[in-house]
Amino acid sequence: MDKKKYVIAVYVENKYGVLTRVTSMFTRRSFNIDTLAVGETEHPEYSRITISMRGDEADKVQIVNQLKKLYNVKKVEVIEDEIGIRRELLLLKVKNNSETRSDVKDCIEAFRAKIVDYSAESLCIEMTGDTSKLNAFIENMRPFGIIEMCRTGIVAIERGPDSILTK
Amino acid sequence: MDKKKYVIAVYVENKYGVLTRVTSMFTRRSFNIDTLAVGETEHPEYSRITISMRGDEADKVQIVNQLKKLYNVKKVEVIEDEIGIRRELLLLKVKNNSETRSDVKDCIEAFRAKIVDYSAESLCIEMTGDTSKLNAFIENMRPFGIIEMCRTGIVAIERGPDSILTK
Repeated sequence: MDKKKYVIAVYVENKYGVLTRVTSMFTRRSFNIDTLAVGETEHPEYSRITISMRGDEADKVQIVNQLKKLYNVKKVEVIEDEIGIRRELLLLKVKNNSETRSDVKDCIEAFRAKIVDYSAESLCIEMTGDTSKLNAFIENMRPFGIIEMCRTGIVAIERGPDSILTK
Repeated sequence: MDKKKYVIAVYVENKYGVLTRVTSMFTRRSFNIDTLAVGETEHPEYSRITISMRGDEADKVQIVNQLKKLYNVKKVEVIEDEIGIRRELLLLKVKNNSETRSDVKDCIEAFRAKIVDYSAESLCIEMTGDTSKLNAFIENMRPFGIIEMCRTGIVAIERGPDSILTK
């Protein structure tokens, strides 16, 4: 069966243990979470968890149904690729030296990234975009010597005037 | 005792259940996770989890020690405010109408945010920055009618040429 990347938005009440209930459901069912991001929402009593995972259609249906049953979970919505805006944030530290610097800077400019820290031996770069843009940028940085990086994982929102809470 | 916001970076092996082991340790010890972000790293076999939490110095020490004991956890590092770059990504959907649009656009420009979706009734805005910048932007958007938003949670990297893996 065809494996696809799914992005699932989960609105949860801000209660002890709700994040663990969500992640352990994935573990119990042997589904692997690719990325997960939890942040505050427009309502202080709720957080929004965005999970990306690979699976087929049946996996997606099963996961959504299981998530909906969990205590403190208010809303679950799959943000399909065609209707959603997906973004990730990357911080990447790369080696800095006078031979490679101008190539690194040209690449940063092409990807509309920006330098947020500078030392004699390193540059720290911030970039946002969808996963494929981040991956392409990282591949371009690899020959220059990546020291360290971190990514937020995907967050996603549907195009148009609706909220997942009112759907 | 003085409560502070801590940002902790955790390098983990990409194995089933490691995220649940991390989050359930917080639940078991009754520490609340404010934000959590898991993303890929420069090494395909590792992920980096960034956790922000509030607590005092003793809480921080306890959490770091407990994290270090967990199976599949390779490295734990507190990214102190003074030496780290902290960033978050925000996607925010706000109401769109001809009376408020120019105020909304001026605010977007001032915060160096950008519009990533447009409909007759809504604008979707992308912004990155530290937590206080995001909070300030959100407060400015509130009177215009926030429809929906999601935040990645904090990611952080230390200034200078070191990696947390080689420290």
